[in-house]
Amino acid sequence: MPIQKPRTLSGFMELLPQKQALFDVMVEKLRQVYALYGFSNLDTPLMEASEVLLAKGGGETEKQIYRFQKGDNDLSLRFDLTVPLAKYVALHQNDLAFPFRRCQIGKVYRGERAQRGRFREFYQADIDVIGDGKLDILNDAEMPAIIYKAFTQLGLSRFVIRVNDRKILNGFYAMLHEEAKAGDIMRLVDKLEKIGAEKVGLALHDDLDISQDTVGDILDFMTIKGSNREVLERLEEYRGRNEVFDLGLDELGAVCRHLAAFGVPESHFQLDLTIARGLDYYTGTVYETQLLDYPEIGSPCSGGRYDNLAEYYTEKQLPGVGISIGLTRLFYVLDEQGLLSGDYLAAPAEVLVLSMTDDLAPAVELATALRQGGVRTQIYFEGKKFKQKLAYADKLGVPFAAILGEDEIAQGKVALKDMVTGAQSLVAPEEAAGVVNTALMDRRCVRPIQEKRV
Amino acid sequence: MPIQKPRTLSGFMELLPQKQALFDVMVEKLRQVYALYGFSNLDTPLMEASEVLLAKGGGETEKQIYRFQKGDNDLSLRFDLTVPLAKYVALHQNDLAFPFRRCQIGKVYRGERAQRGRFREFYQADIDVIGDGKLDILNDAEMPAIIYKAFTQLGLSRFVIRVNDRKILNGFYAMLHEEAKAGDIMRLVDKLEKIGAEKVGLALHDDLDISQDTVGDILDFMTIKGSNREVLERLEEYRGRNEVFDLGLDELGAVCRHLAAFGVPESHFQLDLTIARGLDYYTGTVYETQLLDYPEIGSPCSGGRYDNLAEYYTEKQLPGVGISIGLTRLFYVLDEQGLLSGDYLAAPAEVLVLSMTDDLAPAVELATALRQGGVRTQIYFEGKKFKQKLAYADKLGVPFAAILGEDEIAQGKVALKDMVTGAQSLVAPEEAAGVVNTALMDRRCVRPIQEKRV
Repeated sequence: MPIQKPRTLSGFMELLPQKQALFDVMVEKLRQVYALYGFSNLDTPLMEASEVLLAKGGGETEKQIYRFQKGDNDLSLRFDLTVPLAKYVALHQNDLAFPFRRCQIGKVYRGERAQRGRFREFYQADIDVIGDGKLDILNDAEMPAIIYKAFTQLGLSRFVIRVNDRKILNGFYAMLHEEAKAGDIMRLVDKLEKIGAEKVGLALHDDLDISQDTVGDILDFMTIKGSNREVLERLEEYRGRNEVFDLGLDELGAVCRHLAAFGVPESHFQLDLTIARGLDYYTGTVYETQLLDYPEIGSPCSGGRYDNLAEYYTEKQLPGVGISIGLTRLFYVLDEQGLLSGDYLAAPAEVLVLSMTDDLAPAVELATALRQGGVRTQIYFEGKKFKQKLAYADKLGVPFAAILGEDEIAQGKVALKDMVTGAQSLVAPEEAAGVVNTALMDRRCVRPIQEKRV
Repeated sequence: MPIQKPRTLSGFMELLPQKQALFDVMVEKLRQVYALYGFSNLDTPLMEASEVLLAKGGGETEKQIYRFQKGDNDLSLRFDLTVPLAKYVALHQNDLAFPFRRCQIGKVYRGERAQRGRFREFYQADIDVIGDGKLDILNDAEMPAIIYKAFTQLGLSRFVIRVNDRKILNGFYAMLHEEAKAGDIMRLVDKLEKIGAEKVGLALHDDLDISQDTVGDILDFMTIKGSNREVLERLEEYRGRNEVFDLGLDELGAVCRHLAAFGVPESHFQLDLTIARGLDYYTGTVYETQLLDYPEIGSPCSGGRYDNLAEYYTEKQLPGVGISIGLTRLFYVLDEQGLLSGDYLAAPAEVLVLSMTDDLAPAVELATALRQGGVRTQIYFEGKKFKQKLAYADKLGVPFAAILGEDEIAQGKVALKDMVTGAQSLVAPEEAAGVVNTALMDRRCVRPIQEKRV
């Protein structure tokens, strides 16, 4: 038979079991956090009718979409989780309770040019709260709490959530009578951190033909820094000159008001007037997240408030607020940086049962007892030499081997070998689960990301 | 803006949040059981290069495959989880520890003719153990234990796992010198339960031109019934006439030997010589599972032993044994039969916090404390009337509402309302998580399937 060389498509992440286990722990932690905040999980189809998925039309992503014919059907793979959500909410609006809080962690597809660290199949982990006609600003205020909890659960501590409000930006540019250039200005302002205020000022003047006075106003505004209270106080000085601005300032104040009650430390939350988010449909609060030691990653978690989720599918006004984590890319970068903590989490079992006798009944009974006690257990069934069996245990990275030789069986015991320390202890089979559970208590709480101490 | 009517493709299951929550619990229970037996979870890409995925070529499924061009690439969506596993093991063989135990729960795609209860996108939940060159028969013996645990965890009790060995069948037909007709014979024998021995006998004689004596032998053999011990004893009478048969009998004996030690009750395990499984690649043990009250579902969990997983991708001999659960179809049928238990599991949160005051700080603090205590909590932020807030709690199906009015706040308390009984109690916010956790202890253990009492 001819052999077909096996390969995996480029741009598609396929992990070895140990790495996959770490990825799964990250997904599981996110699921738990989202559930803790009362989000309903959805699992919509990976493909939709093209006329439905692409109802919005045009756009940058259209070229990247996996679109194809099957029979009479023109089909497309989803390229994000937002459009399927819009379809879902419009389609099932009469069966949903609003505000509708949904989370979805799933794969999306974009046929981008393949390059290192860019994926054609990747996970997004989204949450959105959708209101019927109206949606209170406190829904926006809760998002940083969820980001904070999620990142902390993953094992990250050195990050900051940056928040702004599009209404403040739009109102500010209206004050300056520069609405028409707002998009171009924001693109330059976005470079403040990278190239500095002086160069941004020059570009505003030279490239966008903005007067020196106005450039000064913009730079003054954009470099407002300080604690949340200080920033809000500085912004109050602009109040009364533009209605949209004032509304945005009220919103931003509301988003900050309950931070402590939500459990978000000030250190991890920062008002930042330079944040705008590219997408045009954000209309209020916008969020970015930055890993302090890895700014080059960009924002692994972003989002914001939008006025209308599903205008292409329904007349109903559905405002919402949401965030999205680009999980595959985050995982890839953290792995490259060596921040993923392997060991315990990556092992497929907690105990490997090794029998030294021909009769495997005691091994099977022990494994059954361990599993009853909630211990992830594998029996090694193959007839190999003891050394090979131990080598297998090492290769799997299991924390314990349970060895059953004739002596142990005669004594009604099992030898529990700690594969890290090499220490061995003799315990009764019915006590083994308890011993293992106690020994692993700490290791089971390990988080998948371990920041390097800086 | 023109409105595009939203719709979901036919043959694609898209669940409302409550049903989705039940589906998710089923997936989660399966994951936990598979993990308990030491399987590594994989998550391979949904698409592969067509030349790789279809290396085996031909076959019934080929017409059903979603295959398309993207740029220069000829791509196909996976139609099962076995071919991607074969590719994975062949590709990564040097990085895997054998026996390699993998589980995968994921969507697969088959463009079947759309009809009720048939899905084009559906979940399979697979486990396989792959050996390098050899694989001990005790790996086969463990599979019924995993099926038993999985089904029990889902909430099923009225089911039986039926087991046979292809070598016994092949050996038996060789004894009768009817190897050439074995496939056709098995197809007729499969109807024994439906149409009875007499009609099968007639068809064997008339359609397949098998002598009356041989028909008698076949029917005698196929109607061997009884306890596992009785069936094995009857089979011993055939020993010594065909080597393959004898090997199969040894295997079947080994599979039965440790049943009790594996924790499988005899009542849920049955040797059944009529089981053959259609797929040609099974070469030893074969499994089917039958829901006793719903035989029309067919076998929701099947599998078996195969000699070589990845012959299309590698010269390496990779024998394996595995089972697969057709999760989407099982869910669909159970739901139709009204066997899915909604209520607690379907609610997106355990507590809905309702504030009656303008200041939401106490509500936010309470929710934060509840979440710290592991309680899934949602705050209702919208400024609606109390009645509407309670109606929302009812619609979500949350077990508790935590009501914070001026009186409660003044007393430093919260009114915890049991939404099922209507009973209300006043507790301190810091005690609320404990009270809820205690009250929900039983409900959290509810299983997603509730069999009707027969």
